[in-house]
Amino acid sequence: MLDVRAFLRHKRDGRVHPSDDIRAFVEGFQHGAIPDYQVSAWLMAAFLRGLDNGETEALTAALIASGRTFDWTPLERPSADKHSTGGVGDKISLILAPVVAACGVLVPMVSGRGLGHTGGTLDKLESIPGFRTRLEPDALEKQLDRIGVAMVGQGPDLAPADGLLYALRDVTSTVEFEPFIVSSIVSKKIAEGAGALVYDVKCGNGAFMKSRERAVHLAERLVATTRGLGRKAAAVVTDMNQPLGRACGNALEVVESIEVLRGGGPADVRALTLGLAGRMLVASGAETSFDAALSSALRALDSGAAYERFIALVEAQGGDPRAFDRPDGWARAAAVTMVTAARAGTIEAIDTFAMGELLVAIGAGRRRKEDAIDPAVGVMVQARLGDRVGVGAPLAELHLAAADPAVAARLQACFTIGEGPVAPPPLTLATIDP
Amino acid sequence: MLDVRAFLRHKRDGRVHPSDDIRAFVEGFQHGAIPDYQVSAWLMAAFLRGLDNGETEALTAALIASGRTFDWTPLERPSADKHSTGGVGDKISLILAPVVAACGVLVPMVSGRGLGHTGGTLDKLESIPGFRTRLEPDALEKQLDRIGVAMVGQGPDLAPADGLLYALRDVTSTVEFEPFIVSSIVSKKIAEGAGALVYDVKCGNGAFMKSRERAVHLAERLVATTRGLGRKAAAVVTDMNQPLGRACGNALEVVESIEVLRGGGPADVRALTLGLAGRMLVASGAETSFDAALSSALRALDSGAAYERFIALVEAQGGDPRAFDRPDGWARAAAVTMVTAARAGTIEAIDTFAMGELLVAIGAGRRRKEDAIDPAVGVMVQARLGDRVGVGAPLAELHLAAADPAVAARLQACFTIGEGPVAPPPLTLATIDP
Repeated sequence: MLDVRAFLRHKRDGRVHPSDDIRAFVEGFQHGAIPDYQVSAWLMAAFLRGLDNGETEALTAALIASGRTFDWTPLERPSADKHSTGGVGDKISLILAPVVAACGVLVPMVSGRGLGHTGGTLDKLESIPGFRTRLEPDALEKQLDRIGVAMVGQGPDLAPADGLLYALRDVTSTVEFEPFIVSSIVSKKIAEGAGALVYDVKCGNGAFMKSRERAVHLAERLVATTRGLGRKAAAVVTDMNQPLGRACGNALEVVESIEVLRGGGPADVRALTLGLAGRMLVASGAETSFDAALSSALRALDSGAAYERFIALVEAQGGDPRAFDRPDGWARAAAVTMVTAARAGTIEAIDTFAMGELLVAIGAGRRRKEDAIDPAVGVMVQARLGDRVGVGAPLAELHLAAADPAVAARLQACFTIGEGPVAPPPLTLATIDP
Repeated sequence: MLDVRAFLRHKRDGRVHPSDDIRAFVEGFQHGAIPDYQVSAWLMAAFLRGLDNGETEALTAALIASGRTFDWTPLERPSADKHSTGGVGDKISLILAPVVAACGVLVPMVSGRGLGHTGGTLDKLESIPGFRTRLEPDALEKQLDRIGVAMVGQGPDLAPADGLLYALRDVTSTVEFEPFIVSSIVSKKIAEGAGALVYDVKCGNGAFMKSRERAVHLAERLVATTRGLGRKAAAVVTDMNQPLGRACGNALEVVESIEVLRGGGPADVRALTLGLAGRMLVASGAETSFDAALSSALRALDSGAAYERFIALVEAQGGDPRAFDRPDGWARAAAVTMVTAARAGTIEAIDTFAMGELLVAIGAGRRRKEDAIDPAVGVMVQARLGDRVGVGAPLAELHLAAADPAVAARLQACFTIGEGPVAPPPLTLATIDP
């Protein structure tokens, strides 16, 4: 039996918990033996006193042990997954999963919904008519074995203690603490059974991490914790001072993803997909060098193999790929208007957070879990950082159910036009190789 | 409506709470609008980030406002009370209250029970046959008006939020935090209505405060908080490296208190009583100088006026003063044995904490609130720090229901006899004048 008061005193006084104590604490909480008010006191003590790498690993292990874990080794193929900390226009998962699967690596991808100003992969997938993101474990295994890829939501039996802890973190103002963020992300990713994990930590005015230093620190801790628990890991820190690609909005992002899967699409989306795919292929052991991995991934895009894999995925999960040739009814909003530059100059800044908030306001995202989403609405960004624009030049196309000049004005205000010149930011700020 | 998450973030980030926020937080907690798990997160945040004097004052004011408050100004006399942080053999209240009352100052004294290794005034009073420590507010006021002194337990309606908070502090390891200790003590003392408060902060191996520095800091904060809330205050920091006086045990301490009230008794008990009485008389405004106050207090002892006031108090609260001449049945244990020195030398140390624990073990105190007490058991200390003793010299007389050589050996082990010489410690380590 854990002496909970001694455990609280231990962290209160800045000491390091033995792993067994952390496991007993999480177990006691999960099974109701330790009440919320003691757990919340610990959350605050840990927030203020810190958790070291060993404690973060122990917490992550305890969260994993709280629920079901998957093991894909019987399928006798390498496996990998990617996690992004969230941004605006980040549709990379939709492209990356089929690319990596097309290269022979299993991708058992568990994704989340949009919450706050960032979008969610599940919402994007569900904009495809008929697409189901819930699969029973048996169906998941069969699909992975057959087509090598599945994209699903987190079942309630995956790291359930993480959900319980998150609910308490939310009401005790202890959410924004790196070891908690890391244990929450890594526990779910390891429980889903991928052998290699690649993290994309977003950094900039549209990301949760505003500073490069904090983003790099988070990336390092994600990788260290994952490796400490016996999985391969790599990470990239990438720019989120402007939306990724042009499309922001659920169906619009699916359409843009298909463009990339067909060999086209915006350069930044292509480049980030290839960078992540290369690291997943190396980390999983499918390729021995990053150059060879990049070639494989590029070939999967150019040959149509990745697109075919995406079509197989959509069909396997109940979606109708014929919808991709008929955007009406799911991917075309009623009122499309162009927002233009009020003055000539250089795009000096894009308030990506404000744009994310605007997307939530028009129905592309949700404020609360129970909010409904309009899959067709969104923004197609036309101008990027460093671009020269004249008066009346297109900044962004606004897709709404009904025209709304106030929203158009808000969108215009997301762009700061100055004298320039401004160098566009590099896409990749830091990397941690497999 | 207080935004509790913002309130928690505020303290988490080391900022200072506005007084209104603290009041709203305590009110919300008391009335069930703010759940335990948010309060316990705040307790830990405050413990680790600190509360300044203004916040401690605001917390104290909120605890006072949570319940009933008494106001004795209609009785048109100065009033004062004393609080001790607890020690072994500390029977000062029993003598001090009638002394000060005999000098014309109202003493509405609210005391506690023994818990842990320290004794409690209520337990000592209740060893007097028939003595009642519960008085209804009306009876309390009438008694104060008539004889100027009452000694009662804390009613459930006095600072009830303090009891609720204490229960959470206890299970979240946030008890030993000076601003919480101060607000808990001061709120109850102010709610009982005394116009002046004098604090006796115990310091040494038998006290909660082991270091002079921490004891002085606590005394300063008690005085500052009390003054901040509009009452007069003073404090002394006094030695607790040996028991106070000779008697330790409930009825034994009553008997020793009566000796002092009759003009005799141990020098340290007399000296501390006079020092505290002097400060209460000055702080309450009854006397203008400490020297004059000391003379009054000494006269009250020497003239028998204090003893008469004590007899009136005992009678008013249902006790039978005739018992004082018949110790059998309440103040005389069956088995009295003398514990002696096993070697010759100087008393270098007395483990006062261990002696307090021994007193609990023999039934003079309680481990849990519901434990019963044996009023007659205890220890009469014969040897003091710095005394020279020969082999077989008396160290302490042990009063038990039945002889127990193991307890006698434990008591003997509380005394460290060395080569000496050892200077006896000063009784008073620091003072904060009214």
